[in-house]
Amino acid sequence: MTGTVYLVGSGPGDPKLLTVRARELLDTADIVLHDKLPGPEIIDLIPPDRREDVGKRAGGERTPQSEINQRLVELATDGKDVVRLKGGDPFVFGRGGEELEYLAAHDIPVEIVPGVTAAVAGAGVSGIPVTHRDHASSVTIVTGHEAAGKDESTVNWDALAAAGGTIVVLMGVRTLPAYTDALREAGMPDSTPVALVERATWPDQQVVTGTLASIVRLRDEHDITPPAITIIGDVARTRDRVRDFLTNETNE
Amino acid sequence: MTGTVYLVGSGPGDPKLLTVRARELLDTADIVLHDKLPGPEIIDLIPPDRREDVGKRAGGERTPQSEINQRLVELATDGKDVVRLKGGDPFVFGRGGEELEYLAAHDIPVEIVPGVTAAVAGAGVSGIPVTHRDHASSVTIVTGHEAAGKDESTVNWDALAAAGGTIVVLMGVRTLPAYTDALREAGMPDSTPVALVERATWPDQQVVTGTLASIVRLRDEHDITPPAITIIGDVARTRDRVRDFLTNETNE
Repeated sequence: MTGTVYLVGSGPGDPKLLTVRARELLDTADIVLHDKLPGPEIIDLIPPDRREDVGKRAGGERTPQSEINQRLVELATDGKDVVRLKGGDPFVFGRGGEELEYLAAHDIPVEIVPGVTAAVAGAGVSGIPVTHRDHASSVTIVTGHEAAGKDESTVNWDALAAAGGTIVVLMGVRTLPAYTDALREAGMPDSTPVALVERATWPDQQVVTGTLASIVRLRDEHDITPPAITIIGDVARTRDRVRDFLTNETNE
Repeated sequence: MTGTVYLVGSGPGDPKLLTVRARELLDTADIVLHDKLPGPEIIDLIPPDRREDVGKRAGGERTPQSEINQRLVELATDGKDVVRLKGGDPFVFGRGGEELEYLAAHDIPVEIVPGVTAAVAGAGVSGIPVTHRDHASSVTIVTGHEAAGKDESTVNWDALAAAGGTIVVLMGVRTLPAYTDALREAGMPDSTPVALVERATWPDQQVVTGTLASIVRLRDEHDITPPAITIIGDVARTRDRVRDFLTNETNE
């Protein structure tokens, strides 16, 4: 009997933001394949003998995606019910799409278990609504991972600046100077509010707010390191008006 | 003692896609204010004597937002712990931002409980990854609610077409002809894949796939009605390759 692969989003990191279905599957799966992105609190919920780290290897390099794909097929073919646990949602820059297609091409049954994406939740718990009736009628989620300058990037920053909605960048700490410059060159005002949320919903969450012109300096002053999300747009200003009443706030 | 207001996302509708925190709060809150969007399965989890429907009123018209805001303050001031339950995530077109600001302005403590947004999950459970390394380096979530034609809409469809990523429209069944036309006029090819997901993750979920040119006809043929999400972009094509292996599929 072929097992099932569960492509499961773990949410932003707080175990209470796992879905009921994800929580249940962590207890019942034969084996959980994960990397570091779900965060220590969630990984600690999985018994050590039923988890397999497919993130960075001993030498520090990344496990190739092809190897993870093959491992999923191998385990399911062997009759195992396998959870492939991804930070946030499996299909928001999680390469879950590639895994889904590979599994289907190898006749493996798959259940998709969507998760709370850090793009929306990291903003939310910091008091920043990604959309707002008065000042953001869309939200665009992009990856900053490979987004270098305007020329090399696959993201059309000009178009995003013109769209006028909120922009949330995932994995964009290192490349912050490149895409904030690209947006300013595209005509977005220097005064546009920007927030950085490091380790959203983790016990050591850190939030910094500034503008398109000041955020790179603030990133350095506050030593913001990955994982973090960047929220660009008028909505980022909301935080200052509401933060004193947010019971989500941790150690700030 | 002032109570706390919990702004809680209920996810797309399947009770198993509630977060652990949301599930717990539905059991412990003094009162839950909701409308119809969380869906019947989730609303049925709340004991009738602890829930208050603040959606459409007897006459069929919507409860004004100002009235809901005041009711939240009134209940919390009276010492009640109040869950404000919203479909999906409270800050993705849920007017949660307005409620948060109103509550903070009235000194009411608020906890934000992010939810799984239907924009990502409705696509995911249908076998459609909203981002993909090879063909979508961004995803934009917009509302179709007030989006009429290109001229009246607050959404810049030209810019979204130029951005080149996936577009997910929430509440866009009725206005489908308007924004598909706007995107075609903006230069998006007629052959661009489009999917409609009605009642995502509900027991009677329905999915229809077509193209920018055919989707309005398919909407009518399959009698797609709200609530539904529209997914526009190459990723929508993935479904046909994977659907036979998706164990999420319900009654199709």
